[in-house]
Amino acid sequence: MPRQLYELAGEDPARRFSPYCWRIRMALAHKGLEAEVIPWRFTETDRLAFAGTDKVPVLVDGERTLHDSTVIAEYLDQEYPKAPTLFRGDPAARAFTLAWTNAVLHPALVRLIVADIPALLDPHARSYFIKNREARFGMTLAQVAAGRDEQLPQFRALLAPLRHVVAASNYLGGTTPDYADYAVFGAFQWARCVSPFKLLEESDPVFAWRGRMLDLFGGLARNVPAFD
Amino acid sequence: MPRQLYELAGEDPARRFSPYCWRIRMALAHKGLEAEVIPWRFTETDRLAFAGTDKVPVLVDGERTLHDSTVIAEYLDQEYPKAPTLFRGDPAARAFTLAWTNAVLHPALVRLIVADIPALLDPHARSYFIKNREARFGMTLAQVAAGRDEQLPQFRALLAPLRHVVAASNYLGGTTPDYADYAVFGAFQWARCVSPFKLLEESDPVFAWRGRMLDLFGGLARNVPAFD
Repeated sequence: MPRQLYELAGEDPARRFSPYCWRIRMALAHKGLEAEVIPWRFTETDRLAFAGTDKVPVLVDGERTLHDSTVIAEYLDQEYPKAPTLFRGDPAARAFTLAWTNAVLHPALVRLIVADIPALLDPHARSYFIKNREARFGMTLAQVAAGRDEQLPQFRALLAPLRHVVAASNYLGGTTPDYADYAVFGAFQWARCVSPFKLLEESDPVFAWRGRMLDLFGGLARNVPAFD
Repeated sequence: MPRQLYELAGEDPARRFSPYCWRIRMALAHKGLEAEVIPWRFTETDRLAFAGTDKVPVLVDGERTLHDSTVIAEYLDQEYPKAPTLFRGDPAARAFTLAWTNAVLHPALVRLIVADIPALLDPHARSYFIKNREARFGMTLAQVAAGRDEQLPQFRALLAPLRHVVAASNYLGGTTPDYADYAVFGAFQWARCVSPFKLLEESDPVFAWRGRMLDLFGGLARNVPAFD
Protein backbone atom coordinates (compact mmCIF):
# COMPACT_ATOMS: atom_id res chain seq x y z
CA MET A 1 0.00 0.00 0.00
CA PRO A 2 1.36 3.45 -0.82
CA ARG A 3 2.02 5.82 2.08
CA GLN A 4 -1.18 7.70 2.94
CA LEU A 5 -1.80 11.04 4.64
CA TYR A 6 -5.32 11.93 5.71
CA GLU A 7 -5.86 15.68 5.52
CA LEU A 8 -8.71 18.04 6.37
CA ALA A 9 -10.53 19.15 3.20
CA GLY A 10 -13.39 21.44 2.30
CA GLU A 11 -16.31 20.59 0.05
CA ASP A 12 -13.80 20.89 -2.80
CA PRO A 13 -11.44 17.99 -2.05
CA ALA A 14 -8.52 20.10 -3.30
CA ARG A 15 -9.15 22.70 -0.57
CA ARG A 16 -6.81 21.43 2.18
CA PHE A 17 -6.69 23.80 5.10
CA SER A 18 -5.56 22.26 8.39
CA PRO A 19 -2.40 23.93 9.72
CA TYR A 20 -1.34 20.65 11.32
CA CYS A 21 -1.81 18.72 8.08
CA TRP A 22 0.25 21.31 6.23
CA ARG A 23 3.08 20.76 8.70
CA ILE A 24 3.18 17.12 7.68
CA ARG A 25 2.69 17.74 3.96
CA MET A 26 5.75 19.99 4.08
CA ALA A 27 7.65 17.60 6.35
CA LEU A 28 7.12 14.71 3.93
CA ALA A 29 8.41 16.85 1.06
CA HIS A 30 11.40 17.86 3.19
CA LYS A 31 12.22 14.19 3.72
CA GLY A 32 11.67 13.45 0.02
CA LEU A 33 8.82 11.05 0.80
CA GLU A 34 5.79 10.55 -1.44
CA ALA A 35 2.31 10.07 -0.03
CA GLU A 36 -1.22 9.77 -1.31
CA VAL A 37 -3.04 12.72 0.31
CA ILE A 38 -6.58 11.69 1.17
CA PRO A 39 -9.31 14.27 1.81
CA TRP A 40 -11.25 13.99 5.07
CA ARG A 41 -14.07 16.18 6.42
CA PHE A 42 -14.82 17.27 9.97
CA THR A 43 -17.84 15.00 10.24
CA GLU A 44 -16.17 11.79 9.03
CA THR A 45 -14.95 10.61 12.43
CA ASP A 46 -15.74 6.98 11.60
CA ARG A 47 -13.20 7.00 8.80
CA LEU A 48 -10.38 7.62 11.32
CA ALA A 49 -11.48 4.98 13.82
CA PHE A 50 -8.81 2.59 12.46
CA ALA A 51 -6.20 5.10 13.67
CA GLY A 52 -7.62 5.48 17.17
CA THR A 53 -8.26 9.19 16.76
CA ASP A 54 -10.88 11.60 15.48
CA LYS A 55 -8.44 14.19 14.19
CA VAL A 56 -6.14 14.61 11.22
CA PRO A 57 -3.36 14.39 10.22
CA VAL A 58 -3.18 10.62 10.20
CA LEU A 59 -0.24 8.96 8.47
CA VAL A 60 -0.30 5.37 7.32
CA ASP A 61 3.22 4.23 6.53
CA GLY A 62 3.47 0.53 5.72
CA GLU A 63 2.30 -1.23 8.86
CA ARG A 64 2.49 1.89 11.02
CA THR A 65 -0.45 4.21 11.63
CA LEU A 66 0.28 7.47 13.42
CA HIS A 67 -1.60 10.59 14.41
CA ASP A 68 -0.65 13.95 15.99
CA SER A 69 1.56 16.12 13.81
CA THR A 70 4.48 16.29 16.24
CA VAL A 71 4.47 12.52 16.76
CA ILE A 72 4.43 12.02 13.01
CA ALA A 73 7.28 14.48 12.42
CA GLU A 74 9.45 12.85 15.08
CA TYR A 75 8.64 9.43 13.61
CA LEU A 76 9.76 10.60 10.16
CA ASP A 77 13.18 11.60 11.51
CA GLN A 78 13.55 8.29 13.36
CA GLU A 79 12.30 6.08 10.55
CA TYR A 80 14.12 7.89 7.74
CA PRO A 81 17.35 9.08 9.35
CA LYS A 82 19.21 9.29 6.04
CA ALA A 83 16.80 11.84 4.56
CA PRO A 84 17.23 15.55 5.48
CA THR A 85 16.57 16.07 9.19
CA LEU A 86 13.41 17.84 10.37
CA PHE A 87 14.52 18.41 13.97
CA ARG A 88 18.15 19.44 13.72
CA GLY A 89 20.03 19.14 16.99
CA ASP A 90 17.87 18.45 20.01
CA PRO A 91 14.11 18.22 19.32
CA ALA A 92 13.72 20.42 22.41
CA ALA A 93 15.34 23.19 20.40
CA ARG A 94 12.14 23.37 18.34
CA ALA A 95 9.72 22.85 21.21
CA PHE A 96 9.51 26.53 22.07
CA THR A 97 8.66 27.58 18.53
CA LEU A 98 6.00 24.89 18.30
CA ALA A 99 4.54 25.93 21.66
CA TRP A 100 4.45 29.56 20.51
CA THR A 101 2.70 28.54 17.29
CA ASN A 102 0.05 26.55 19.13
CA ALA A 103 -0.45 28.81 22.15
CA VAL A 104 0.00 32.28 20.65
CA LEU A 105 -0.17 32.30 16.86
CA HIS A 106 -3.13 29.96 16.28
CA PRO A 107 -5.48 31.51 18.89
CA ALA A 108 -4.82 35.00 17.53
CA LEU A 109 -5.06 33.95 13.90
CA VAL A 110 -8.22 31.89 14.13
CA ARG A 111 -10.27 34.94 15.11
CA LEU A 112 -9.22 36.71 11.92
CA ILE A 113 -10.15 33.91 9.52
CA VAL A 114 -12.65 31.56 11.13
CA ALA A 115 -15.73 33.30 9.76
CA ASP A 116 -14.55 32.58 6.20
CA ILE A 117 -14.35 28.82 6.71
CA PRO A 118 -18.06 27.79 6.57
CA ALA A 119 -18.39 28.92 2.95
CA LEU A 120 -15.81 26.27 1.97
CA LEU A 121 -17.56 23.35 3.67
CA ASP A 122 -20.26 20.97 2.52
CA PRO A 123 -23.64 21.59 4.21
CA HIS A 124 -23.21 18.84 6.80
CA ALA A 125 -19.70 19.87 7.86
CA ARG A 126 -20.76 23.53 7.75
CA SER A 127 -23.50 23.14 10.29
CA TYR A 128 -21.22 21.13 12.59
CA PHE A 129 -18.46 23.71 12.25
CA ILE A 130 -20.59 26.77 12.91
CA LYS A 131 -22.23 25.25 15.96
CA ASN A 132 -18.94 24.01 17.39
CA ARG A 133 -17.01 27.23 16.83
CA GLU A 134 -19.76 29.57 17.98
CA ALA A 135 -19.91 27.61 21.23
CA ARG A 136 -16.11 27.88 21.54
CA PHE A 137 -16.05 31.64 21.00
CA GLY A 138 -19.28 32.35 22.86
CA MET A 139 -20.52 34.52 20.01
CA THR A 140 -21.61 34.23 16.40
CA LEU A 141 -18.91 33.93 13.74
CA ALA A 142 -20.19 37.22 12.31
CA GLN A 143 -19.43 38.82 15.67
CA VAL A 144 -15.95 37.26 15.72
CA ALA A 145 -15.32 38.64 12.23
CA ALA A 146 -16.56 42.10 13.16
CA GLY A 147 -13.56 42.58 15.45
CA ARG A 148 -10.86 41.58 13.03
CA ASP A 149 -9.88 44.93 11.55
CA GLU A 150 -9.36 46.21 15.05
CA GLN A 151 -7.35 43.12 16.08
CA LEU A 152 -5.04 43.17 13.08
CA PRO A 153 -2.40 45.55 14.53
CA GLN A 154 -2.17 43.40 17.64
CA PHE A 155 -1.85 40.26 15.51
CA ARG A 156 1.00 41.79 13.53
CA ALA A 157 2.70 42.91 16.75
CA LEU A 158 2.70 39.44 18.21
CA LEU A 159 4.66 38.20 15.20
CA ALA A 160 7.68 40.12 16.54
CA PRO A 161 9.81 37.08 17.45
CA LEU A 162 9.16 35.45 14.08
CA ARG A 163 9.84 38.74 12.30
CA HIS A 164 13.09 39.23 14.16
CA VAL A 165 14.45 35.80 13.20
CA VAL A 166 13.39 35.77 9.53
CA ALA A 167 14.66 39.30 9.01
CA ALA A 168 18.11 38.02 10.02
CA SER A 169 18.13 34.59 8.35
CA ASN A 170 16.19 33.01 5.52
CA TYR A 171 14.43 30.47 7.69
CA LEU A 172 13.79 29.68 11.34
CA GLY A 173 16.07 26.72 10.64
CA GLY A 174 18.84 29.06 9.47
CA THR A 175 19.99 28.86 5.85
CA THR A 176 17.58 26.01 5.13
CA PRO A 177 14.09 25.33 6.51
CA ASP A 178 13.32 22.77 9.15
CA TYR A 179 10.29 21.66 11.13
CA ALA A 180 10.00 24.96 13.00
CA ASP A 181 9.42 26.65 9.64
CA TYR A 182 6.81 24.10 8.64
CA ALA A 183 4.97 24.45 11.95
CA VAL A 184 4.73 28.24 11.75
CA PHE A 185 4.08 28.22 8.01
CA GLY A 186 1.19 25.79 8.51
CA ALA A 187 -0.70 28.61 10.20
CA PHE A 188 -0.17 31.04 7.32
CA GLN A 189 -1.03 28.39 4.76
CA TRP A 190 -4.22 27.61 6.68
CA ALA A 191 -5.09 31.31 6.49
CA ARG A 192 -4.48 31.72 2.77
CA CYS A 193 -6.43 28.55 1.98
CA VAL A 194 -9.57 29.72 3.76
CA SER A 195 -9.64 33.52 3.83
CA PRO A 196 -9.03 36.57 1.65
CA PHE A 197 -8.30 38.64 4.78
CA LYS A 198 -4.93 40.35 4.34
CA LEU A 199 -2.79 39.38 7.31
CA LEU A 200 0.59 40.80 6.36
CA GLU A 201 1.95 43.98 4.84
CA GLU A 202 4.08 43.18 1.80
CA SER A 203 6.97 45.10 3.38
CA ASP A 204 6.93 42.75 6.40
CA PRO A 205 9.91 40.34 6.59
CA VAL A 206 7.34 37.72 7.58
CA PHE A 207 5.65 38.21 4.20
CA ALA A 208 8.97 37.60 2.42
CA TRP A 209 9.63 34.47 4.51
CA ARG A 210 6.13 33.22 3.71
CA GLY A 211 6.94 33.71 0.02
CA ARG A 212 10.11 31.63 0.42
CA MET A 213 8.06 28.90 2.08
CA LEU A 214 5.50 28.98 -0.74
CA ASP A 215 8.33 28.51 -3.24
CA LEU A 216 9.72 25.37 -1.59
CA PHE A 217 9.45 21.97 -3.28
CA GLY A 218 8.43 23.40 -6.62
CA GLY A 219 5.66 25.56 -5.16
CA LEU A 220 4.00 22.66 -3.34
CA ALA A 221 2.06 24.95 -1.01
CA ARG A 222 1.62 27.81 -3.47
CA ASN A 223 -0.05 25.75 -6.18
CA VAL A 224 -3.26 24.81 -4.37
CA PRO A 225 -6.67 26.50 -4.23
CA ALA A 226 -6.15 29.59 -2.07
CA PHE A 227 -7.00 33.27 -1.83
CA ASP A 228 -3.66 34.80 -2.84
CA MET B 1 44.96 39.14 33.55
CA PRO B 2 42.05 37.05 34.79
CA ARG B 3 38.92 36.89 32.66
CA GLN B 4 36.64 39.85 33.48
CA LEU B 5 32.92 40.37 33.12
CA TYR B 6 31.49 43.86 33.60
CA GLU B 7 27.99 43.70 35.02
CA LEU B 8 25.31 46.23 35.88
CA ALA B 9 25.17 46.83 39.65
CA GLY B 10 23.12 48.88 42.07
CA GLU B 11 24.48 51.10 44.81
CA ASP B 12 25.28 47.84 46.60
CA PRO B 13 27.93 46.32 44.33
CA ALA B 14 26.53 42.86 45.11
CA ARG B 15 23.15 43.81 43.59
CA ARG B 16 23.58 42.65 39.97
CA PHE B 17 20.40 43.01 38.00
CA SER B 18 20.89 43.16 34.23
CA PRO B 19 19.07 40.31 32.47
CA TYR B 20 21.72 40.32 29.74
CA CYS B 21 24.56 40.13 32.24
CA TRP B 22 22.87 37.21 33.97
CA ARG B 23 22.76 35.36 30.65
CA ILE B 24 26.52 35.57 30.50
CA ARG B 25 27.13 34.84 34.16
CA MET B 26 25.16 31.61 33.70
CA ALA B 27 26.80 30.90 30.34
CA LEU B 28 30.27 31.16 31.86
CA ALA B 29 29.28 28.76 34.64
CA HIS B 30 27.82 26.40 32.01
CA LYS B 31 31.17 26.41 30.21
CA GLY B 32 33.03 25.95 33.49
CA LEU B 33 34.87 29.27 33.04
CA GLU B 34 35.85 31.54 35.92
CA ALA B 35 35.61 35.30 35.68
CA GLU B 36 36.07 38.30 37.91
CA VAL B 37 32.66 39.99 37.91
CA ILE B 38 33.12 43.76 38.01
CA PRO B 39 30.30 46.08 39.07
CA TRP B 40 29.37 48.91 36.70
CA ARG B 41 26.70 51.59 37.05
CA PHE B 42 24.47 53.16 34.42
CA THR B 43 26.33 56.46 34.54
CA GLU B 44 29.85 55.08 34.13
CA THR B 45 29.92 55.10 30.36
CA ASP B 46 33.57 56.23 30.30
CA ARG B 47 34.64 53.01 31.98
CA LEU B 48 33.40 50.99 28.98
CA ALA B 49 34.99 53.19 26.34
CA PHE B 50 37.86 50.69 25.99
CA ALA B 51 35.30 48.15 24.75
CA GLY B 52 33.70 50.46 22.18
CA THR B 53 30.29 50.33 23.84
CA ASP B 54 28.26 52.02 26.55
CA LYS B 55 26.42 48.90 27.64
CA VAL B 56 27.12 45.81 29.68
CA PRO B 57 27.82 42.93 29.58
CA VAL B 58 31.41 43.38 28.46
CA LEU B 59 33.73 40.38 28.56
CA VAL B 60 37.50 40.70 28.58
CA ASP B 61 39.05 37.33 27.79
CA GLY B 62 42.82 37.50 27.38
CA GLU B 63 43.37 39.81 24.44
CA ARG B 64 39.73 39.74 23.33
CA THR B 65 37.17 42.30 24.43
CA LEU B 66 33.54 41.59 23.51
CA HIS B 67 30.17 43.14 24.14
CA ASP B 68 26.56 42.15 23.39
CA SER B 69 25.36 39.07 25.23
CA THR B 70 24.59 37.01 22.12
CA VAL B 71 27.97 37.80 20.58
CA ILE B 72 29.66 36.81 23.83
CA ALA B 73 27.73 33.55 24.11
CA GLU B 74 28.54 32.56 20.53
CA TYR B 75 32.18 33.45 21.14
CA LEU B 76 32.29 31.19 24.20
CA ASP B 77 31.13 28.20 22.14
CA GLN B 78 33.67 28.95 19.40
CA GLU B 79 36.59 29.68 21.70
CA TYR B 80 35.93 26.84 24.14
CA PRO B 81 34.47 24.07 21.97
CA LYS B 82 35.49 21.31 24.38
CA ALA B 83 33.41 22.74 27.24
CA PRO B 84 29.65 21.98 27.34
CA THR B 85 27.89 23.60 24.39
CA LEU B 86 25.63 26.61 24.89
CA PHE B 87 24.00 26.52 21.46
CA ARG B 88 23.36 22.87 20.77
CA GLY B 89 22.67 22.11 17.14
CA ASP B 90 22.20 25.11 14.92
CA PRO B 91 22.39 28.52 16.69
CA ALA B 92 19.28 29.41 14.68
CA ALA B 93 17.43 26.84 16.76
CA ARG B 94 17.74 29.22 19.71
CA ALA B 95 17.15 32.43 17.79
CA PHE B 96 13.39 32.26 18.15
CA THR B 97 13.50 31.86 21.93
CA LEU B 98 15.93 34.76 22.22
CA ALA B 99 13.76 36.93 19.99
CA TRP B 100 10.71 36.09 22.10
CA THR B 101 12.60 36.96 25.28
CA ASN B 102 13.71 40.32 23.93
CA ALA B 103 10.56 41.30 22.03
CA VAL B 104 7.81 39.87 24.23
CA LEU B 105 9.02 38.92 27.70
CA HIS B 106 11.23 41.92 28.52
CA PRO B 107 8.78 44.63 27.41
CA ALA B 108 5.96 43.05 29.41
CA LEU B 109 8.12 42.38 32.46
CA VAL B 110 9.77 45.77 32.72
CA ARG B 111 6.45 47.47 33.38
CA LEU B 112 5.89 45.25 36.41
CA ILE B 113 9.25 45.89 38.08
CA VAL B 114 10.79 49.11 36.78
CA ALA B 115 9.37 51.30 39.54
CA ASP B 116 11.28 49.29 42.13
CA ILE B 117 14.68 49.87 40.55
CA PRO B 118 15.45 53.48 41.59
CA ALA B 119 15.56 52.54 45.28
CA LEU B 120 18.53 50.26 44.53
CA LEU B 121 20.62 52.87 42.75
CA ASP B 122 23.06 55.47 44.00
CA PRO B 123 21.72 59.04 43.78
CA HIS B 124 23.51 59.87 40.52
CA ALA B 125 22.41 56.72 38.71
CA ARG B 126 18.95 57.08 40.21
CA SER B 127 18.29 60.48 38.72
CA TYR B 128 19.60 59.33 35.31
CA PHE B 129 17.45 56.20 35.44
CA ILE B 130 14.21 57.90 36.44
CA LYS B 131 14.54 60.61 33.79
CA ASN B 132 15.46 58.10 31.07
CA ARG B 133 12.74 55.59 31.87
CA GLU B 134 9.98 58.14 32.43
CA ALA B 135 10.75 59.55 28.99
CA ARG B 136 10.64 56.04 27.53
CA PHE B 137 7.26 55.19 29.07
CA GLY B 138 5.77 58.66 28.68
CA MET B 139 4.58 58.64 32.29
CA THR B 140 5.97 58.64 35.80
CA LEU B 141 7.28 55.38 37.22
CA ALA B 142 4.57 55.61 39.87
CA GLN B 143 2.02 55.63 37.06
CA VAL B 144 3.69 52.63 35.42
CA ALA B 145 3.56 50.77 38.74
CA ALA B 146 -0.09 51.64 39.30
CA GLY B 147 -1.08 49.42 36.39
CA ARG B 148 0.81 46.33 37.37
CA ASP B 149 -1.79 44.40 39.32
CA GLU B 150 -4.10 44.74 36.38
CA GLN B 151 -1.39 43.66 33.90
CA LEU B 152 -0.32 40.59 35.84
CA PRO B 153 -2.87 38.14 34.35
CA GLN B 154 -1.83 39.20 30.86
CA PHE B 155 1.85 38.78 31.77
CA ARG B 156 1.22 35.27 33.05
CA ALA B 157 -0.77 34.43 29.92
CA LEU B 158 2.05 35.44 27.61
CA LEU B 159 4.31 32.91 29.31
CA ALA B 160 2.25 30.13 27.66
CA PRO B 161 4.96 28.91 25.25
CA LEU B 162 7.55 28.80 28.05
CA ARG B 163 5.08 27.09 30.36
CA HIS B 164 4.22 24.49 27.76
CA VAL B 165 7.85 23.50 27.19
CA VAL B 166 9.01 23.44 30.82
CA ALA B 167 5.93 21.50 31.88
CA ALA B 168 7.02 18.75 29.49
CA SER B 169 10.80 18.82 29.97
CA ASN B 170 13.10 20.06 32.70
CA TYR B 171 14.67 22.79 30.61
CA LEU B 172 14.19 24.59 27.31
CA GLY B 173 17.36 22.74 26.32
CA GLY B 174 15.70 19.39 27.14
CA THR B 175 17.15 17.28 29.94
CA THR B 176 19.92 19.80 30.58
CA PRO B 177 19.86 23.60 30.28
CA ASP B 178 21.37 25.53 27.42
CA TYR B 179 21.58 29.15 26.33
CA ALA B 180 17.84 29.43 25.70
CA ASP B 181 17.30 28.71 29.39
CA TYR B 182 19.87 31.29 30.43
CA ALA B 183 18.34 33.94 28.17
CA VAL B 184 14.82 33.48 29.52
CA PHE B 185 16.02 33.00 33.08
CA GLY B 186 17.96 36.26 32.91
CA ALA B 187 14.63 38.08 32.82
CA PHE B 188 13.31 36.33 35.92
CA GLN B 189 16.58 36.81 37.75
CA TRP B 190 16.49 40.53 36.85
CA ALA B 191 13.01 40.67 38.38
CA ARG B 192 13.86 38.92 41.64
CA CYS B 193 16.99 41.05 42.08
CA VAL B 194 15.09 44.34 41.86
CA SER B 195 11.49 43.79 42.90
CA PRO B 196 9.36 42.08 45.54
CA PHE B 197 6.44 41.98 43.10
CA LYS B 198 5.19 38.39 42.85
CA LEU B 199 5.27 37.41 39.19
CA LEU B 200 4.45 33.71 39.34
CA GLU B 201 2.05 31.46 41.18
CA GLU B 202 3.92 28.70 42.96
CA SER B 203 1.79 26.13 41.14
CA ASP B 204 3.01 27.43 37.77
CA PRO B 205 5.42 25.08 35.93
CA VAL B 206 7.40 28.23 35.13
CA PHE B 207 7.94 28.74 38.87
CA ALA B 208 9.31 25.19 39.21
CA TRP B 209 11.61 25.70 36.21
CA ARG B 210 12.83 28.98 37.72
CA GLY B 211 13.62 27.04 40.89
CA ARG B 212 15.67 24.52 38.90
CA MET B 213 17.56 27.40 37.29
CA LEU B 214 18.25 28.97 40.69
CA ASP B 215 19.69 25.64 41.88
CA LEU B 216 22.20 25.33 39.02
CA PHE B 217 25.92 25.66 39.67
CA GLY B 218 25.59 25.40 43.43
CA GLY B 219 22.92 28.07 43.66
CA LEU B 220 24.95 30.66 41.70
CA ALA B 221 21.89 32.77 40.92
CA ARG B 222 19.99 32.00 44.10
CA ASN B 223 22.69 33.12 46.50
CA VAL B 224 22.78 36.82 45.67
CA PRO B 225 20.91 39.79 47.16
CA ALA B 226 17.34 39.43 45.93
CA PHE B 227 13.72 39.69 47.05
CA ASP B 228 12.84 36.01 47.28
